[in-house]
Amino acid sequence: MQLLDGKATSQAIKDELKLAVDKRIKEGSKTPHLAAVLVGNDGGSLTYVNAKVKACEQIGFQSSLIRYDDTVTEAELLAKIIELNNDDEIDGFIVQLPLPNHIDELKITMAIDPDKDVDGFHPQNLGKMMLNLPSFLPATPAGILELMKRNGIETSGKDCVVIGRSNIVGMPLSIMLAKKNDPGNCTVTLVHSRTKNIKKKVLQADIIIAAIGQPGFVTADMVKEGAVIIDVGTTRVVDSSKKNGWALKGDVDFANVAEKCSYITPVPGGVGPMTIASLMINTLQSMELRNK
Amino acid sequence: MQLLDGKATSQAIKDELKLAVDKRIKEGSKTPHLAAVLVGNDGGSLTYVNAKVKACEQIGFQSSLIRYDDTVTEAELLAKIIELNNDDEIDGFIVQLPLPNHIDELKITMAIDPDKDVDGFHPQNLGKMMLNLPSFLPATPAGILELMKRNGIETSGKDCVVIGRSNIVGMPLSIMLAKKNDPGNCTVTLVHSRTKNIKKKVLQADIIIAAIGQPGFVTADMVKEGAVIIDVGTTRVVDSSKKNGWALKGDVDFANVAEKCSYITPVPGGVGPMTIASLMINTLQSMELRNK
Repeated sequence: MQLLDGKATSQAIKDELKLAVDKRIKEGSKTPHLAAVLVGNDGGSLTYVNAKVKACEQIGFQSSLIRYDDTVTEAELLAKIIELNNDDEIDGFIVQLPLPNHIDELKITMAIDPDKDVDGFHPQNLGKMMLNLPSFLPATPAGILELMKRNGIETSGKDCVVIGRSNIVGMPLSIMLAKKNDPGNCTVTLVHSRTKNIKKKVLQADIIIAAIGQPGFVTADMVKEGAVIIDVGTTRVVDSSKKNGWALKGDVDFANVAEKCSYITPVPGGVGPMTIASLMINTLQSMELRNK
Repeated sequence: MQLLDGKATSQAIKDELKLAVDKRIKEGSKTPHLAAVLVGNDGGSLTYVNAKVKACEQIGFQSSLIRYDDTVTEAELLAKIIELNNDDEIDGFIVQLPLPNHIDELKITMAIDPDKDVDGFHPQNLGKMMLNLPSFLPATPAGILELMKRNGIETSGKDCVVIGRSNIVGMPLSIMLAKKNDPGNCTVTLVHSRTKNIKKKVLQADIIIAAIGQPGFVTADMVKEGAVIIDVGTTRVVDSSKKNGWALKGDVDFANVAEKCSYITPVPGGVGPMTIASLMINTLQSMELRNK
């Protein structure tokens, strides 16, 4: 078994991006600028957003963190989005999800200018992705493909099971893996809560991607010998051995599955850092497109 | 085995649409108006476009057929699309594909106002479909779902294999079947030219959707007893017994598969008429949205 080290791969990408940014700035380009909007004080969201800001600093991007109390109204948030859409200084921005219940996440997503939607959540970007047109690819699925590519994992002709049909991971990833691209050309089966005989289906897969948010869902008896395992799950579970009282758990029973598979992503340190790397790639791309 | 009679189902939809249109017009609405742009003299394209115009007449829609010689330039075609986009009289329009090689089909598709894109090919409509937002659903996939629904075919929890990953049928249909909708909630496997052991995969399916344009590709030994078969293929093959010298062949070996399956669409008279019904549904919907 080999670890798919998202942290190391992400670092390699960030190193490349830093060189690219330095070069662009020397050539007279503006500094790429990513803004992040965070509502409320959810610990997970704060951690993610801080990691994104930190990545910007490492690469030499400018970043702005815009924070709101969780009592912010939808109208206030929409006004800020319009402001960011119109601000030529900002190359891309994200609104960290989830949002409080009184705010319509889809309405917020739809309000973001697709040309600044570096998370790749806007329907226009998803639709372009489907048609293989230039677009911002959804950050987590794109990070997963990049992780496989940089670690020499062949996808063409492989049987792949994606567990979970979320709008931001499972559903778009199932398309990206199936398309005539490299990485891609997989035979993808998308399984979900209504699927019958999930175990049998997962057992047939050469590549298993777990993205349902159920800690330890994928057990060793569901995994074919030598399969590649990508674990997108990041659920906080109580862990008294940890200083902060919790640990991050993936959707895969790592300890037992690791013995059977060829490659596996750890949690944390697997897919998470790759999502951030994708976001940085999209932000640089946006700066370049906007200043052509 | 029961035939999934697309002609009869499409007729039932058209009858309902005629009543709905008559009612709208009595209430003071404008008459829905569909325009179709046809380039060249391909016999298949001409047949499809004529069928669409005829359907408009049956329902009481207005229709306009705009024809170009296959020497038309991309610029001329784009100018017409912009004109149709801006013409308030037109509720929706289609550009019949395929187009001659010197015209970029994607460029043409992208130029169509998503709010008049009743074929549902524009990335904005595809992306909205992915997110379950109101949109024009791609006509052929939507017609297939409607055909199953109106014939009482349960999809939830079923294993479905979609053969072919085209932008206009296989790819969007695989998503629509997998989503948490009714019809939907299938476990979908999308197979294509790079798939290994296609036969084994198709054999496991409760619902088989063939959309690759290879006459007779799905043979009886690939079909589980009692499966539901949807045949999207329409390839012209030489047939000297026919007056015009050819016959339309589906992707399924109908004669032998029919004996094993529970439901099957004929070719012609299965999916084809349903595509037209979807187009009519989208056009009425567009008129209503535009005149709200």
